[in-house]
Amino acid sequence: MSSLILNNDRKQIIQEIAQTYGTPVYVYFADEINERIEKVKSIFEGINILPTFACKSNNNPHIVEHFSRNGFGTDIVSIGEYYVSKKAGVDDQKIVWNGNGKSRHEIEVLSNCVGYVNIDSVEEYERWKEYETDATFFLRVNPDVDPMTHHHISTGLKKNKFGIPVEEIDKILNDKNGPKISGFHVHIGSQIVDVEPFDEALSSVANLSRRYGFSKINIGGGWGIKYEDKELNLEEYKRKIIPHLEGFELVLFELGRYLIAPAGLLVATVQYVKRTSHKTFVVVDAGMNTLIRPAMYDAYHNMIVLTPTEGIAKADVVGPLCESGDLLARDREIQIPKVGSHVVFENVGAYGYSMSSNYNSYPRPAEVLVSENGSKITLIRRRETIDDLFRTIV
Amino acid sequence: MSSLILNNDRKQIIQEIAQTYGTPVYVYFADEINERIEKVKSIFEGINILPTFACKSNNNPHIVEHFSRNGFGTDIVSIGEYYVSKKAGVDDQKIVWNGNGKSRHEIEVLSNCVGYVNIDSVEEYERWKEYETDATFFLRVNPDVDPMTHHHISTGLKKNKFGIPVEEIDKILNDKNGPKISGFHVHIGSQIVDVEPFDEALSSVANLSRRYGFSKINIGGGWGIKYEDKELNLEEYKRKIIPHLEGFELVLFELGRYLIAPAGLLVATVQYVKRTSHKTFVVVDAGMNTLIRPAMYDAYHNMIVLTPTEGIAKADVVGPLCESGDLLARDREIQIPKVGSHVVFENVGAYGYSMSSNYNSYPRPAEVLVSENGSKITLIRRRETIDDLFRTIV
Repeated sequence: MSSLILNNDRKQIIQEIAQTYGTPVYVYFADEINERIEKVKSIFEGINILPTFACKSNNNPHIVEHFSRNGFGTDIVSIGEYYVSKKAGVDDQKIVWNGNGKSRHEIEVLSNCVGYVNIDSVEEYERWKEYETDATFFLRVNPDVDPMTHHHISTGLKKNKFGIPVEEIDKILNDKNGPKISGFHVHIGSQIVDVEPFDEALSSVANLSRRYGFSKINIGGGWGIKYEDKELNLEEYKRKIIPHLEGFELVLFELGRYLIAPAGLLVATVQYVKRTSHKTFVVVDAGMNTLIRPAMYDAYHNMIVLTPTEGIAKADVVGPLCESGDLLARDREIQIPKVGSHVVFENVGAYGYSMSSNYNSYPRPAEVLVSENGSKITLIRRRETIDDLFRTIV
Repeated sequence: MSSLILNNDRKQIIQEIAQTYGTPVYVYFADEINERIEKVKSIFEGINILPTFACKSNNNPHIVEHFSRNGFGTDIVSIGEYYVSKKAGVDDQKIVWNGNGKSRHEIEVLSNCVGYVNIDSVEEYERWKEYETDATFFLRVNPDVDPMTHHHISTGLKKNKFGIPVEEIDKILNDKNGPKISGFHVHIGSQIVDVEPFDEALSSVANLSRRYGFSKINIGGGWGIKYEDKELNLEEYKRKIIPHLEGFELVLFELGRYLIAPAGLLVATVQYVKRTSHKTFVVVDAGMNTLIRPAMYDAYHNMIVLTPTEGIAKADVVGPLCESGDLLARDREIQIPKVGSHVVFENVGAYGYSMSSNYNSYPRPAEVLVSENGSKITLIRRRETIDDLFRTIV
């Protein structure tokens, strides 16, 4: 499925938003979100699903509410994400609590709220024996499958911190003193563009589920979108993966990036075009504080120049921070923009704002939602002020 | 100079702070800061200096105030850092404005406040022609010297976004229509542990200054501390670098990491010790949201276990976030801690809190300053609350 199309109408809307709310600003298009929700539902047609939105990818309650209105629950990791879900109107019974570090404090707060808990370790299972809860428990198994993605976001290898190795699940399933286990959860990583790792992991965990008589399964997420070249082929996914789910009464899954990344844009203003004898630098007002993925994962985000000069050149697109890693695009052949004009980074709806920081004491940006075919523009998070930077100083 | 010594008194204080303020929490020792301030002053003995503290390393106004009381100005990059300086009581005349992306808005706000401006490009020089200001201007030159540090934090190579190549400075210095230039600024990177790159860069820029008749120079910073093995040899620095500064009426410099990194600790609580057949994971309540350096730069921070079990083992120390990159120490031979006890990460006073985020919707930690030989404990930034996460949601 192709990404958001930045047609002239949308470019016009972006210019208006930049004028009204300033830059840098994150802009989300509800139409694109809706298309993706429909696509996901079509993949799972005929299966009884509980789809969840992975709040870590985007924790704006207005965005999460959009998914909630379309039948999604949430995949959460923290108390903060639970409250994001509540502000978004998500029913407790549709909240799945995931994560490898559930603290006693978090368990005390959340154990009687969430509908589902994915247990990450034998040690966590032991801890749950001390608490009373009506939640439905799944075991996260670590299938030791290489998702062939960035090492930071592969999660289903034995060397990764997540899940219980298959050979150790009997320690829990033969024990009758702890919470009842209703199924397995498996999530092998994020931004996976090949069907094979899903095939390997899900066929194995589906068979394991049948062996233990489980009628529910949580197949995780990890669908890879098109940042630069390849994306997950969803027709192939449907053909090869969906048959593994035959016979299950309930299939849960968690998607974040696939649903929201392509719907989000980051709009920045060009501050300088710095030309040295060695290199051209386009300096914009967004940096690694605003969008850390290029600096952190060497991630590629396509950039579109809204007001180009006549020239095309190879340039680094950089932010204003005092660090060389503060780079948004490296050695990119681009239309050189005019100073003062806007540029747009694509596919930043996921892991954009949610990973942003106040590094170099810059306030964090605003977020704007465009809905109803572009006719409705809503500020969904105001820009931080200088005062916000000092709110917790005592 | 050796790092902070974590003696029993200090361990006791840390335990008390963790009890009182919770974890994760950043703790700073004023004694260590003071020692480092004295060490820096001794290196520059006999030279007329304006020392500045690089706010990007730690933007807590109470920390900056500590430097201000000891005669330091600040090296700032943003309006936010200007206000950090003002809250810390720094005199405008001691504020140096650095950075490659000074926007028109920032120039309008700051041009009549700051004492010094380091111009980063020919394009920035042209822009300053439109503004009236009494600031003293320096040109940041890019000497194309490799500081042999992490590629994210080297700044003095031609491929880096910072500064003006030496062969292009005449464009500015032969022009008489812009702001008067009073000297050169050079900063080749951060965490530099060899004297040679400083020698190469500073001898070259000092000679350049003499050639142009400049009596002031800003020599930047970048002094490397001991994270794992090597640190900058300051005696060698004094012997080889200080002679280059002979004859200058005023020497400015900017230090952040050297002054504050070793004075800061991150205290976390152990949530789980997860043992699989493949690996041991110590799960703590701090993650890449709290301290991003290990995930971002593969940085090493020594970890001390305050309440060990009897066992020593190789373990990954990880946080609670849903991402494999959420790792604080990899394959580390450590005393395995007890669940519920505290561990301490060293050398995190710089680029710790200042780079922290709310990723996975965790509130950011508190900061505590220990002064007067451990007898005074001051909360200098309160822990964020869940409400703080939603403060800008509209």
